[in-house]
Amino acid sequence: MTDIEYMKLALQMAHSTKGQTSPNPVVGAIVVKNGRVAGMGAHLKAGTEHAEVLALNMAGSDAEGATIYVTLEPCSHFGKTPPCADLIIDKKVKRAVVATLDPNPQVSGNGVRKLKKAGIEVTVGVKKEEADWLNRHFFHYIRTGLPYVTLKSAASIDGKTATHTGESQWITGPRAREDGHILRHEHDAILVGIGTVLKDNPSLTVRTSTGGIHPVRIILDHQLRTPLTAKLLTDKQAPVWIFCSKEADSTKINRLEKAGAEVISISSKIEAGEVLQVLGKRKIQSVYVEGGAAVHGSFLEAKAFQEIVCYIAPKLIGGADAPTVIGGTGFSSMAQVPELDVVSLEQLESDIKMVAVPKRSKE
Amino acid sequence: MTDIEYMKLALQMAHSTKGQTSPNPVVGAIVVKNGRVAGMGAHLKAGTEHAEVLALNMAGSDAEGATIYVTLEPCSHFGKTPPCADLIIDKKVKRAVVATLDPNPQVSGNGVRKLKKAGIEVTVGVKKEEADWLNRHFFHYIRTGLPYVTLKSAASIDGKTATHTGESQWITGPRAREDGHILRHEHDAILVGIGTVLKDNPSLTVRTSTGGIHPVRIILDHQLRTPLTAKLLTDKQAPVWIFCSKEADSTKINRLEKAGAEVISISSKIEAGEVLQVLGKRKIQSVYVEGGAAVHGSFLEAKAFQEIVCYIAPKLIGGADAPTVIGGTGFSSMAQVPELDVVSLEQLESDIKMVAVPKRSKE
Amino acid sequence: MTDIEYMKLALQMAHSTKGQTSPNPVVGAIVVKNGRVAGMGAHLKAGTEHAEVLALNMAGSDAEGATIYVTLEPCSHFGKTPPCADLIIDKKVKRAVVATLDPNPQVSGNGVRKLKKAGIEVTVGVKKEEADWLNRHFFHYIRTGLPYVTLKSAASIDGKTATHTGESQWITGPRAREDGHILRHEHDAILVGIGTVLKDNPSLTVRTSTGGIHPVRIILDHQLRTPLTAKLLTDKQAPVWIFCSKEADSTKINRLEKAGAEVISISSKIEAGEVLQVLGKRKIQSVYVEGGAAVHGSFLEAKAFQEIVCYIAPKLIGGADAPTVIGGTGFSSMAQVPELDVVSLEQLESDIKMVAVPKRSKE
Amino acid sequence: MTDIEYMKLALQMAHSTKGQTSPNPVVGAIVVKNGRVAGMGAHLKAGTEHAEVLALNMAGSDAEGATIYVTLEPCSHFGKTPPCADLIIDKKVKRAVVATLDPNPQVSGNGVRKLKKAGIEVTVGVKKEEADWLNRHFFHYIRTGLPYVTLKSAASIDGKTATHTGESQWITGPRAREDGHILRHEHDAILVGIGTVLKDNPSLTVRTSTGGIHPVRIILDHQLRTPLTAKLLTDKQAPVWIFCSKEADSTKINRLEKAGAEVISISSKIEAGEVLQVLGKRKIQSVYVEGGAAVHGSFLEAKAFQEIVCYIAPKLIGGADAPTVIGGTGFSSMAQVPELDVVSLEQLESDIKMVAVPKRSKE
Ligand SMILES: [Zn+2]
Ligand SMILES: [Zn+2]
Ligand SMILES: [Zn+2]
Ligand SMILES: [Zn+2]
Repeated sequence: MTDIEYMKLALQMAHSTKGQTSPNPVVGAIVVKNGRVAGMGAHLKAGTEHAEVLALNMAGSDAEGATIYVTLEPCSHFGKTPPCADLIIDKKVKRAVVATLDPNPQVSGNGVRKLKKAGIEVTVGVKKEEADWLNRHFFHYIRTGLPYVTLKSAASIDGKTATHTGESQWITGPRAREDGHILRHEHDAILVGIGTVLKDNPSLTVRTSTGGIHPVRIILDHQLRTPLTAKLLTDKQAPVWIFCSKEADSTKINRLEKAGAEVISISSKIEAGEVLQVLGKRKIQSVYVEGGAAVHGSFLEAKAFQEIVCYIAPKLIGGADAPTVIGGTGFSSMAQVPELDVVSLEQLESDIKMVAVPKRSKE
Repeated sequence: MTDIEYMKLALQMAHSTKGQTSPNPVVGAIVVKNGRVAGMGAHLKAGTEHAEVLALNMAGSDAEGATIYVTLEPCSHFGKTPPCADLIIDKKVKRAVVATLDPNPQVSGNGVRKLKKAGIEVTVGVKKEEADWLNRHFFHYIRTGLPYVTLKSAASIDGKTATHTGESQWITGPRAREDGHILRHEHDAILVGIGTVLKDNPSLTVRTSTGGIHPVRIILDHQLRTPLTAKLLTDKQAPVWIFCSKEADSTKINRLEKAGAEVISISSKIEAGEVLQVLGKRKIQSVYVEGGAAVHGSFLEAKAFQEIVCYIAPKLIGGADAPTVIGGTGFSSMAQVPELDVVSLEQLESDIKMVAVPKRSKE
Repeated sequence: MTDIEYMKLALQMAHSTKGQTSPNPVVGAIVVKNGRVAGMGAHLKAGTEHAEVLALNMAGSDAEGATIYVTLEPCSHFGKTPPCADLIIDKKVKRAVVATLDPNPQVSGNGVRKLKKAGIEVTVGVKKEEADWLNRHFFHYIRTGLPYVTLKSAASIDGKTATHTGESQWITGPRAREDGHILRHEHDAILVGIGTVLKDNPSLTVRTSTGGIHPVRIILDHQLRTPLTAKLLTDKQAPVWIFCSKEADSTKINRLEKAGAEVISISSKIEAGEVLQVLGKRKIQSVYVEGGAAVHGSFLEAKAFQEIVCYIAPKLIGGADAPTVIGGTGFSSMAQVPELDVVSLEQLESDIKMVAVPKRSKE
Repeated sequence: MTDIEYMKLALQMAHSTKGQTSPNPVVGAIVVKNGRVAGMGAHLKAGTEHAEVLALNMAGSDAEGATIYVTLEPCSHFGKTPPCADLIIDKKVKRAVVATLDPNPQVSGNGVRKLKKAGIEVTVGVKKEEADWLNRHFFHYIRTGLPYVTLKSAASIDGKTATHTGESQWITGPRAREDGHILRHEHDAILVGIGTVLKDNPSLTVRTSTGGIHPVRIILDHQLRTPLTAKLLTDKQAPVWIFCSKEADSTKINRLEKAGAEVISISSKIEAGEVLQVLGKRKIQSVYVEGGAAVHGSFLEAKAFQEIVCYIAPKLIGGADAPTVIGGTGFSSMAQVPELDVVSLEQLESDIKMVAVPKRSKE
């Protein structure tokens, strides 16, 4: 197999761990000695071994003189674990192939420099684009200190999310819905408005055929109207954080905190920007914004999103008053409207899935 | 070349004449004698030669003993021209390959039977599916007496057709817009509501790089508010038909008719079903419904459409009050909502084009 | 439809006439007036109307102000028919779209210049590559005065054309064989060695499901060993030309000529180059060289070929002495061996079809 | 990720270890607990941990209640390591997804039965076809006791492997040659005739950009003409086994054995069948037969091969006496000729690679 083929496999291994390594990135590593795979590994969970450690340990003495393929620059500083760059040097690896550099400007390139200094041959950039896209949540967070925001839209062809009477279940089919659950698993947090809580009483957990990790559940709830009987309070499946205005009633705060939620009061208007600031400080690297329309509207108007995932159901709901996926005030002129690039377009059973990102980085 | 390859070419020739043969279907024909094309033709315009006539005349005496490929069953009755089946027999053609039968139940199969009776070997069904789709307007009209209705949607990813302030130009890019003009050319009529006329003052003509045939322009205008200065009245590019309620003011009727429009008064509520009945009687085989939202709503709620063409621009307009492509009341429950099948999905520059048809025939 | 789409259709029409227009090229033309096809045609046979004439005549008065799409530069000089450029001007066509220029350096560009001088807007080069490939036989002949040579190979995976005992029927399957017959139809002449005639007694005619035009049958027969009972002499399906050495027996010549063949005596060694010179003078624009191995060898060693079509049957015949497709002496060193570019690769039922052309033009 | 996606990754991991696990099959395993990958591994080398062991050990206590994906039925009997089925049961895994069953009829299904008996939910057959193809060498060997034979062909379009003067370097380009080296790595043994040794003095080792495992080098050498100075004797890179006839000179045997080769004398005629019997007993599961033509001929005539890999260089070498890839006597009649199915067809730089297998199993 070639460099590209080994790196492709390392990326596929890393990809399979999406959603489970936060706050760490996903990383895959393969050690190859004389055309024979001697070790392979992917980082599985923060606090446990890095991918390089797993792969090098599996390789044992075969690491000497081998090539290591790793999807992200090896770390060069002491974190919860000793630096992988040192281990690579200690193990007398001969060559390192790295897909992309560490996004942190303060350390980016240090790992590679250390390896080179130790006489290791280093190749950087093999399948870089895929590696960057794979860790886009992590990279965005490291560069900005703010979570990567994915807006989720599920609507009919005519852009409606429910009939004018409010009926909405089910717009998309089973496969699109499962896909949406996988996205919950891949984000650190899921975010909805109080309207959604009151209307749907959702659990916001991950329910797929193979299971998943429930994200932190975030409710934007100005006046703390979340009922104590809400499923997400009673099910104890994952943390619940409720953002309210600083004028919110303290009795309500106490009651909700007793019920297990964490209540975060911010300035009177709950703005997307401020919410993201708080989440960033709390090490939330990615937020999956499910709506409702008002919440989507506030993120859109603040241009506070990095990606939108749209599931389009081949149905026509109609109705001038039927709700659409993005509410709020909206932009006044077309000139303000953000333009996107379609990244992918695929069919999931009878539904269409479209992924798009802003044309220019607007953070 | 094989039967399939010759029929494919005949279909491509027929396809190139879409929009110009109404009320006739598009038809292509090729005469092949001993592996050599002896004649080819496509029906170009109602009242002129049928495709078979053009191809057989070009073939001259080579028609004797030849094979004719024709995308639609040859006619067997006297219309504006003598029956093609008779000509095929007269010319001593040896074999006829037919893509699909005449949709008219009263004559369907007659052409083929006539040919067979005359000793001509006939093969039916080569590329039938493509041939049926190609003439879907004509087939629908012949079977129901009503025009085939194509709804047109051009919206942002979030289903909006304008900002909340009403600004809408341009949502989609040049290629999607040209594609929309080609669809105007391919339909007998274009239909809009009075709202669109008042707001946009559109011409509703075909403007493409290669030109096109302007459809009959239809306005649903309950109270005859169409101004005499409207571009579509003053430009004299194509007929204008205005549907109004029977209570409409006769002075207004006179004025509009003097300005060149034809005013058609129907029952007090202008319903999609009744409009289509009238258009069907007037031999309109296909209507391209451009909106606005109220008009789309009335066609949707009456389930009076056969196809929807959606151009999706990768933009997010937002706004709870921003208009969406389909208005009206809409369906109350998801159970009433029509389900569609996506027929095609393609990228036109940065926009997405999706074509869908109702899952079950609902006419 | 766009310029590219109309030109594509014109090319498809022209393609359907491959093999039947020699010594003329294949040409397709479409006249479009205001987005409506007004005329279409393809040149069908030398001596009859050019494509432009058919299309313009069909268009009638609609030609005025129209656009004509034509796959080859319109002729500007009097041949068997008056110049098409003049007709285009007379008909007051407004714009001409031309895929590629006339290959004859003495007239190339004259047609376009004439049109432009008359005030017609001309676009050249739309789908040029396809247009050039389509008429590669004609273009090669016009530029060199020599026929375009296509070598045909049908062999097993291990390159054998028969078992060591000489058994060879059938190596490839029905679809590959029919494809080979279509290639006979598309060439002016088919060429084999006397060995093939003696061994297989072939007819060398076109036998496909839809018929075809038999090429001139050429035998390289040094000592005139072609038996008077050979099928290709007795069947009278197409001309037979026999090349022999100038020392050949005149009685034999007489006998073969009486049997209907034309005998052409050239220098004592029958070399590919000399044969092609003669054929070029006799207006043969393309030769399909079916073998046997010695004949293929002589064309290969003279580097006298423009294309090779290989049908590879998924079989292993084996045998050091089993014959292969190209015989002769062959090249001594790998440096002399001609390198090719694979132009297409497809599966025909269980067989593989590969088309390749010399890497650099070696004529 | 779905069952299919996890199994696909396990297969890709297994694929990366092709060539390094013999006499064991390649196997990949992934442990997934609640949508989170808890362990992953691939069997790396005979005598070391099975894939399941690596993956379960990595998972630790997370194995309890997890799903294990494994590309081959877990072993149920004591080999060099305790049975994986027992470990899966001990670790309290909840569900096992198995791509394909053990090919050994005596134990096939036992692993799955054991798991089911222990109350584990078992799904068999996910991506079975890919799993079977991946381990085709191993499966064939287990079922027949004979090595899987891959014939290698590298020839020009006209089936030649050298010019008539014997010059052959280089027919194919660098990428096709590297691909051939990867195939050496993936087989237990490489086999050539004495002619190849005398003519090319090859090393028969693996030389790729990423290294590889040298196969056992086998020479068919009736009269022991292998020179003591042959590269493959002097380089000591991998074992050399020389097959000779039982009449071979014992002095020569001694000399070659002293030089490091193992000499195996079989019956006077060195027949493919007998050679494979010996290799099978020596646990060689796969043989890559590089030729020359006589050797290929003997394997073909004995129908002793399971696959042929052909590299076709777009060149025309020509020459009736130029050598072809398969020699020997060959089949006398087309009826005896083995028919193949083309499994894949791809372009490697300018060369074509075709893989084919016998239509019906002929072993
Ligand atoms: Zn590390
Ligand atoms: Zn007719
Ligand atoms: Zn002309
Ligand atoms: Zn095991």
